[in-house]
Amino acid sequence: MNLSALLTSAGINIALCLVLSSLYSILRKQPSNTSVYFGQRLSQVQSKDQFGLDRFVPSAGWIVKAWETTEEDLLTVGGLDAIVFFRIVVFCIRLFSVAGVLCICVVLPLNYFGQPVHHKKLRTESLEVFTIGNIQQGSNLLWVHCLVLYCITFCSFALLYIESKSIAKKRIAYITNNHQKLGLFTIVVRAIPFSGDSYSDSVTNFFTNYYSSSYLSHQMVYLPGTVRKLVKDAEYMYNMLKAPDMSQCGPSMVRCGLCGVSEKPFRILSKGLYSDDDDDDDDRRAFAEDLREEECAAALVFFRTRYAALVAAQTLQSPNPMHWVTNMAPEPPDVFWTNLCVPYKLLWVRKIGTHLAAIALMIFFFAPVSIVQSLVHLERLKEKFAFVRRLSNKRNFIFDMVTGYLPSVMLMLFLYAVPPIMSTLAAVEGPIARSGRKISACHKVLFFIIWNVFFSNILSGSVLESIDRISSLEDIPSQLANGVPSMAVFFMTYVLTSGWTGLASELMQPFVLLCHWLDRIVFRGFTASVTAPLMLPFLMVYFLLAYIVYRNQFINVYITKYDTGGLYWPIAHNAIIFSLLLTQTIVLGVFTHKNADCSSSFTIALIICTLLFHYYCRQRFFPLFQSPSAQVVMEMDRQDEHSGKLTEIHKMLLSAYCQFQSSSPNSAHDRELQELNDHLRSKFCSLKSNSHHNSPISAHIDQVKNEDDHEPQDADDIISVMGSNKSPQNSVAEPPRFQTEDSIIELH
Amino acid sequence: MNLSALLTSAGINIALCLVLSSLYSILRKQPSNTSVYFGQRLSQVQSKDQFGLDRFVPSAGWIVKAWETTEEDLLTVGGLDAIVFFRIVVFCIRLFSVAGVLCICVVLPLNYFGQPVHHKKLRTESLEVFTIGNIQQGSNLLWVHCLVLYCITFCSFALLYIESKSIAKKRIAYITNNHQKLGLFTIVVRAIPFSGDSYSDSVTNFFTNYYSSSYLSHQMVYLPGTVRKLVKDAEYMYNMLKAPDMSQCGPSMVRCGLCGVSEKPFRILSKGLYSDDDDDDDDRRAFAEDLREEECAAALVFFRTRYAALVAAQTLQSPNPMHWVTNMAPEPPDVFWTNLCVPYKLLWVRKIGTHLAAIALMIFFFAPVSIVQSLVHLERLKEKFAFVRRLSNKRNFIFDMVTGYLPSVMLMLFLYAVPPIMSTLAAVEGPIARSGRKISACHKVLFFIIWNVFFSNILSGSVLESIDRISSLEDIPSQLANGVPSMAVFFMTYVLTSGWTGLASELMQPFVLLCHWLDRIVFRGFTASVTAPLMLPFLMVYFLLAYIVYRNQFINVYITKYDTGGLYWPIAHNAIIFSLLLTQTIVLGVFTHKNADCSSSFTIALIICTLLFHYYCRQRFFPLFQSPSAQVVMEMDRQDEHSGKLTEIHKMLLSAYCQFQSSSPNSAHDRELQELNDHLRSKFCSLKSNSHHNSPISAHIDQVKNEDDHEPQDADDIISVMGSNKSPQNSVAEPPRFQTEDSIIELH
Repeated sequence: MNLSALLTSAGINIALCLVLSSLYSILRKQPSNTSVYFGQRLSQVQSKDQFGLDRFVPSAGWIVKAWETTEEDLLTVGGLDAIVFFRIVVFCIRLFSVAGVLCICVVLPLNYFGQPVHHKKLRTESLEVFTIGNIQQGSNLLWVHCLVLYCITFCSFALLYIESKSIAKKRIAYITNNHQKLGLFTIVVRAIPFSGDSYSDSVTNFFTNYYSSSYLSHQMVYLPGTVRKLVKDAEYMYNMLKAPDMSQCGPSMVRCGLCGVSEKPFRILSKGLYSDDDDDDDDRRAFAEDLREEECAAALVFFRTRYAALVAAQTLQSPNPMHWVTNMAPEPPDVFWTNLCVPYKLLWVRKIGTHLAAIALMIFFFAPVSIVQSLVHLERLKEKFAFVRRLSNKRNFIFDMVTGYLPSVMLMLFLYAVPPIMSTLAAVEGPIARSGRKISACHKVLFFIIWNVFFSNILSGSVLESIDRISSLEDIPSQLANGVPSMAVFFMTYVLTSGWTGLASELMQPFVLLCHWLDRIVFRGFTASVTAPLMLPFLMVYFLLAYIVYRNQFINVYITKYDTGGLYWPIAHNAIIFSLLLTQTIVLGVFTHKNADCSSSFTIALIICTLLFHYYCRQRFFPLFQSPSAQVVMEMDRQDEHSGKLTEIHKMLLSAYCQFQSSSPNSAHDRELQELNDHLRSKFCSLKSNSHHNSPISAHIDQVKNEDDHEPQDADDIISVMGSNKSPQNSVAEPPRFQTEDSIIELH
Repeated sequence: MNLSALLTSAGINIALCLVLSSLYSILRKQPSNTSVYFGQRLSQVQSKDQFGLDRFVPSAGWIVKAWETTEEDLLTVGGLDAIVFFRIVVFCIRLFSVAGVLCICVVLPLNYFGQPVHHKKLRTESLEVFTIGNIQQGSNLLWVHCLVLYCITFCSFALLYIESKSIAKKRIAYITNNHQKLGLFTIVVRAIPFSGDSYSDSVTNFFTNYYSSSYLSHQMVYLPGTVRKLVKDAEYMYNMLKAPDMSQCGPSMVRCGLCGVSEKPFRILSKGLYSDDDDDDDDRRAFAEDLREEECAAALVFFRTRYAALVAAQTLQSPNPMHWVTNMAPEPPDVFWTNLCVPYKLLWVRKIGTHLAAIALMIFFFAPVSIVQSLVHLERLKEKFAFVRRLSNKRNFIFDMVTGYLPSVMLMLFLYAVPPIMSTLAAVEGPIARSGRKISACHKVLFFIIWNVFFSNILSGSVLESIDRISSLEDIPSQLANGVPSMAVFFMTYVLTSGWTGLASELMQPFVLLCHWLDRIVFRGFTASVTAPLMLPFLMVYFLLAYIVYRNQFINVYITKYDTGGLYWPIAHNAIIFSLLLTQTIVLGVFTHKNADCSSSFTIALIICTLLFHYYCRQRFFPLFQSPSAQVVMEMDRQDEHSGKLTEIHKMLLSAYCQFQSSSPNSAHDRELQELNDHLRSKFCSLKSNSHHNSPISAHIDQVKNEDDHEPQDADDIISVMGSNKSPQNSVAEPPRFQTEDSIIELH
């Protein structure tokens, strides 16, 4: 590819970018699009349906607004995860500013005049004269490259350490400031051994025996199938009742089971609930029996203090490590209920199965990558095959576009199939939290991208590059050494930008806007079709735009369902270190190839430094992302005890986790159902807080319609109603949510 | 190598073995050797110095005695570690019986008649006709090999599972039956932040604040240099005092500080101890100040219950993960005191440094391995070089010996340098327990052996083997596929036997007997110079002999200093799985090379099965080896509380850990010192149990002479004296020890 091809692709991309931005600034003003562009704000601000000419004029106001948003605003809107995401973007901007200045002022001229050849006109100059490949063998100039590499590496160390420190501080603040995080009081117990009458009895016996002072209550997890049946029955009976007796019972239908109709399935439910009923005991016992048969060997156990829960979650409970497996519970909206029912003994099979599937996908993805590579190397294919030459001779513009632009777009299209597949695999793997699933998918996607885009590209790329020398296998090592630097730029940009945005796409679930989707392809087209160090200004522009665009998205579009509290940072940290190591290894390869022995050994020292830095950071910061510290948790417990909030939290705890979510309150019928639900729930909250442990039946009271795997938005609304009745600032409430296309990638 | 070479080496080995066994059976009857051969029993039985002819006649009584020892006897003598070791040996015997029968009855004839060639006389037959290499390309007979591999693999799964289960059970019993394990009440705190007056104050504040209900006391760790100085001063003063005033003060020299002499350093010490002294307070304060300056940022913290200690050890304490780092404490004799003083912040540098050093050693060990390989392949070198041919033509016996025997011996000699080096590296790495250091060294040695003996051998071996084809690099893959099966047997036996005995040598520290050392070389000579499946009977003999010899050693010779409670089992488990995977991979390579596609895919399935099995066992058994379960620990606490033993244990706890050990009580002078020591200790036990936390001064009372890095044998004696005064069956006492050559491999 020469400079004109690069300029062509740059022109297309800039034009596309401008058109899309203008379109966005117009479309966002149309009232009909409010739901798409202002999902986050929809609840707070009612859109005014005014008509004016300015609705159809592109404007840059949103950019200013996005730029001016403070970090505090972002934290309240998007949670700590959003902050972490922006810290990554800011880190990239800072690092690439430094790298950009260094490379353009020092390395670029060095590369360009690296060989004493007569330079062609700048426009038709091949981009390879700007790369390190243009430096002579054994040249002293390579010292400068080594020095620049040192500068960039230590600069990134400093930046990374600062960011890690600030995020660690923010994470501690996030934990200490959220006294309503109920997950800290709760543990998930799996692999409960069956003893006594039921799993529930086992839990009661075990925790009253060993944790009598701190054990508060527990809640069993039920098989998903049963729940669906019970909920359907209940709804059916409700409709039956509603038709004739609606006037009698009124909207407050607490005692609807007693409203004359005595259909069996509904009576059973109501009997389970009301023990003051004068019906026969046999039915009730039979119902309890039925329910017990449907219990999973898993439960949520609530403790009186956060510290007790932390300790119980971290300790090995039983001498048989396959029994009484404890973990910290996720926050209520974050629980992945179906996976709680997966027998713990099968979990390892699932894990290995999904890993194997992910590896298989990686291997089979090799085909599209090879095709893309052959397009990148069209210039070389042209020399080989007549028809390609004919095609390219006729239309130079098209040829430029094909080599400069199409390969990345095609690779992008293939890559867009990967996150949904990985997300599905991650769900099958069996995490108990939705966020855990996202993190697992994120790992898989990152690994996939690094492997496929980097290593596959090197292999297929260098094979194609050397199509004339392929006859002898002897040269493979030297060919690889040749191939790595010339492909290096493509990969480096790829790992950095696709890695980041791949991370972002997993983190932020932005399957929302086609516009945005195109946007990103445009920018990726940029970065993947230029060569270093010329690419750095483009990268800078990319990151700055990402900063603005994502800020806008966070403020206006994305809905934060659950906040992991920055658990994504370790992944980002690892990826940054990996990128650094990759860059260093590639440069080492180039130095070795160019016989710069002294620079090579200095680069090896740098690699060791990087490893040391990584190891230190792992020790210094990573434990914070695994579990909260005892000191923090105890201080929180003490504060709550002093202020008397602890009993309030205990009450909330008993009804916070709800396996059976209601649907969105669209129809009047649904609203009535929900009222009933709320009433029952509040009634049983008080019931439960009296009894020492939760009866298996009371857990079923909130069954209305949906199963666990649907989005838990309305369950939150219920909780928020309950919470805000008592103390609005203390509630676990999140604002009412808008259903996005995000559920497309949700399994089930 | 042909069959006659094998027989030659076998003959030499058998002869050597018989001679050494006879020598041993005579030598052990000589009274002068009692200290060498009966270290373990020395304390219990007084040897009778009788003279008779039977003292000079070889006998087999020791074999019978060793064979008849029950597992219970072994447990009391050698601890759980000895049992684990014998379970490994028994596992090998069982597995190789099955493999032996299958291979000799099925595989051996198949290999021998695998190709329709005319067989030479059996004596001059090359050993390679007995290997899989003799089977034709694409032969259907390879199915049988695959089937046998399946049988062996699943048999080893079953055996391994049974052993794991029984050892896990034994480990739980080991924990529950040892109510005097004081390590369970203690945690090691490192990286204590400096606040208030001293580190000791920090500890007091922190634990009284956050663990007020369960915190019992603590004991600071002091810099080794100071301690040495203080101890020297004290001893010097004691000698000064003793010379003039011995008659006045008598052997019970509790108040020797007051016996007229008022030398400064000694008075300071005594003032620190006796607060009822009427001397000026300034000196005392100055002394306390001095001591505080010498405190490390590390302490041993004692808790009232085992569960509290377990919880405190496992939880992340501070929001800064580099402060208040907690771990379970090792048992008193197992503490590695110098490493406790290593600043926690430097620990990761040490770790990486030692790992790099170990890797460097591995790389530089390549040279001796290559030499050994060239000897193994002398037959091929013979064809190339004239002088080798001449040499071998002249003396056939010598040639047989060189190819059949010398290579292994040479490799052994080189390998014997490795464990001491690795042990040193492991000490530098910074483990806080002596057993932790051994385990780390064990890992390093195993890794080293596997890498060097296996991979280096393959590389150098196949290069030498194909010395005529080395010109073209193209064939490397096919050459490796060729090389692996023909070298496979050498490696398999090596990994299994050297791996095990390497493990054993680390576990049991048997640098004691030259005889035994030769013994092992003999048997290694066997196993490393034959080829499969012919080698299996030899292996069987080897393991049976190992069983007998080690039993004898355990009962009579080895001294168990500390018992890790079977912590070596996970290493053994991993090594067994690794050996299985290696075997399967090699067979897979052979199948692929022989175009047996169906068998290849079945072998891949088997590899996946092995990985699954390993993953399952990791989940099922390994957590038990990391920390005791809450249930077990709580039950123990309850039992002790019911029986009232808890207060007694608390008392013992306060004086159990002692950084400053006394030397062996050889002279009368030393005995007196020790009496003083005991007296002071008992006095301060009561002092300490009254005060809530340990004063930094009282920790110094037991300073007599030696530093921490010497073997803590006599410290144990002191404790045993104290313990047996109260309740002999409950004491942490171990019998008085005999100093073995083991300290050769101890650092410092």
